[in-house]
Amino acid sequence: MRVLILGGDGYLGWPTAMAFSAKGHEVRVIDNYLRRRLCRERDVEGLYETPNLLERVRRWKAISGKSITPHIGDCCDYPFLSRIFEQFEPEAVIHYAEQPSAPFSMLDHGAADLTITNNLRSTLNLAWAVHAFVPQCHIIKLGTMGEYGTPNIDIEEGWLDIDHNGRRDRFLYPRQAGSLYHTTKIQDTDLLWFYVRTWKLAVTDLMQGPVYGLSTTETDLDDELKTNFNYDEIFGTVLNRFVVQAVAGYPLTVYGKGGQTRGYLNIRDTLACVELALLTPAAPGELRVFNQFVETFSVNELADRVSRVGKARGHAVTVENLANPRVEAEEHYYNPVHTGLRELGLKPHLLTDEVLSQMFEVVERHAGQIDKHKIFRGYRW
Amino acid sequence: MRVLILGGDGYLGWPTAMAFSAKGHEVRVIDNYLRRRLCRERDVEGLYETPNLLERVRRWKAISGKSITPHIGDCCDYPFLSRIFEQFEPEAVIHYAEQPSAPFSMLDHGAADLTITNNLRSTLNLAWAVHAFVPQCHIIKLGTMGEYGTPNIDIEEGWLDIDHNGRRDRFLYPRQAGSLYHTTKIQDTDLLWFYVRTWKLAVTDLMQGPVYGLSTTETDLDDELKTNFNYDEIFGTVLNRFVVQAVAGYPLTVYGKGGQTRGYLNIRDTLACVELALLTPAAPGELRVFNQFVETFSVNELADRVSRVGKARGHAVTVENLANPRVEAEEHYYNPVHTGLRELGLKPHLLTDEVLSQMFEVVERHAGQIDKHKIFRGYRW
Repeated sequence: MRVLILGGDGYLGWPTAMAFSAKGHEVRVIDNYLRRRLCRERDVEGLYETPNLLERVRRWKAISGKSITPHIGDCCDYPFLSRIFEQFEPEAVIHYAEQPSAPFSMLDHGAADLTITNNLRSTLNLAWAVHAFVPQCHIIKLGTMGEYGTPNIDIEEGWLDIDHNGRRDRFLYPRQAGSLYHTTKIQDTDLLWFYVRTWKLAVTDLMQGPVYGLSTTETDLDDELKTNFNYDEIFGTVLNRFVVQAVAGYPLTVYGKGGQTRGYLNIRDTLACVELALLTPAAPGELRVFNQFVETFSVNELADRVSRVGKARGHAVTVENLANPRVEAEEHYYNPVHTGLRELGLKPHLLTDEVLSQMFEVVERHAGQIDKHKIFRGYRW
Repeated sequence: MRVLILGGDGYLGWPTAMAFSAKGHEVRVIDNYLRRRLCRERDVEGLYETPNLLERVRRWKAISGKSITPHIGDCCDYPFLSRIFEQFEPEAVIHYAEQPSAPFSMLDHGAADLTITNNLRSTLNLAWAVHAFVPQCHIIKLGTMGEYGTPNIDIEEGWLDIDHNGRRDRFLYPRQAGSLYHTTKIQDTDLLWFYVRTWKLAVTDLMQGPVYGLSTTETDLDDELKTNFNYDEIFGTVLNRFVVQAVAGYPLTVYGKGGQTRGYLNIRDTLACVELALLTPAAPGELRVFNQFVETFSVNELADRVSRVGKARGHAVTVENLANPRVEAEEHYYNPVHTGLRELGLKPHLLTDEVLSQMFEVVERHAGQIDKHKIFRGYRW
């Protein structure tokens, strides 16, 4: 299948590109290195350096014998994006090309403006390019469980039937997020849902929880194929950060009471879910929504697990409950449905002590490169 | 009260500025003439020319003795906008500074990009400027009834209590609009609702139906104080267009079956509603929503009324059911609540034959200036 990946240099984008290339798909990737630039500017580079996208693609060719075609440019640049659609005529496009950090989106006005402008213009351009050049193309868009927030009712899988005054209709499940980043993901859903109804686009929205891990079949083939791995409070996801903190002897940074509960998944399951979506596309005029996570944990439960495994490996792990820098409920009801992807055949990886130990092993190899000043600076919102 | 009006040169913005100035408020207006530029570029100027904003303000001073301070510039320019907030310290701000045309937003990629970028960046900048300089300032934002679309259940006033699996929560009423423009109004609601919860902004969202009319107490004082009046299919609202078509001997352009039902209001009621919102502000941390319309009509009912009044005035009015250029339901359930503004004291103007006759009178005076080529070009979406 001809697959175009927007944001193909990212934490998930690059492993996705290799996974699909390995399975024999014809893969092109687009990236403008926005994430790399933002990390450099904010002094929060990852645990180790990763080769740029052109070098990654060359290395992948050398190791696997397979080609991935890279395009360096901005999905907000419509002439650039539409030329690639016109030439390549993708059958599916995976949309990772968004500013993905909630804390970044809350830093200052410039960061907020960049987040909203980048995330909505890239999605708008995607809808227009598909409509103009490949109207049957399946759009697989990464949403986030954070769009739902923490409502007091069960979270359904994207849609909700509402009975009201004796009549009934079906609506997008109500969304109310806890950061500007997550709000832009609600807004890009609004946008795609509009064009799905108007132009009969075929869209799958993967409402993903926080991802952890740095090992996939392809990244493990060679040190130069690793994905990037942030451990700072802006771009690092919580479990990845905790493992680095444990190795560095830095107290695990639990925000407030630590009762915040979310649905998590291993990066290997992200790849599996995106592939399941690819192989069973949405129909024209359908916005199909899956809740993409495997297990729910509170932040305290994550801290407990990291502590246990870290101590067993000889680290002196401590936990610190910090004054919460975020505006969020620290204890709340949380009961999200997530049956759709299992019904498509997902075999989840669970967060076992063994999986955690494997994460520790990689981080321990880079222990000397951890910069404690990058871990926590207390950005508030 | 110190009142700042964003988009103060517009169809509603300029009459609002004069109305508040007349009541003794200290009024500043911001406009970048975007609407004028778009009308010129698309060859759809209004029925008559209107003086620019600086001339309007001078004329208003000469007639009323009262001052309105104009600022020519773009609300998407944050340094420009924030300087005005810092200097003026408004107690209330009325946000009309959005690209307001559904058909325009559907013309082409450039128009879509302009609409989404302008409408979301102006709203983002507004939220930031209020938070930074006048956190208690009451934001009165114009939403639209079009955000709700045409659901199969009753439309409540902004919010909906949902019972689900034995639990209950309250959410923004589900929104799903019929144009990109209306979708950007859903998105700016998402945005303000997020900042209301995070920063405790005080926001009133006026979900307005299509407005008709061109007469207010202040616009009637002098020919140079008139508001702009579009009669084309892009920027003209339906009733205004029909009156011009009747006078021009152009068949009334009913799209499809004409069963599309919406809630309408007179421009005088827009001013009254905005004033009621101003005088009874939302509380900090509150997003207060009013459905702002007075009566519901189908397009066929509007065409019937315009025909009847037009014929009585000697015009040979005909109606033509055109193939619908829009993607929309031509027959649907529609039952929206609109009690909030009446409870605040709104005394509605109804669409009587007398009111319609007064509109005819003004248009008839300009009959020689109607350019039939501007009326309908069949832009499709």
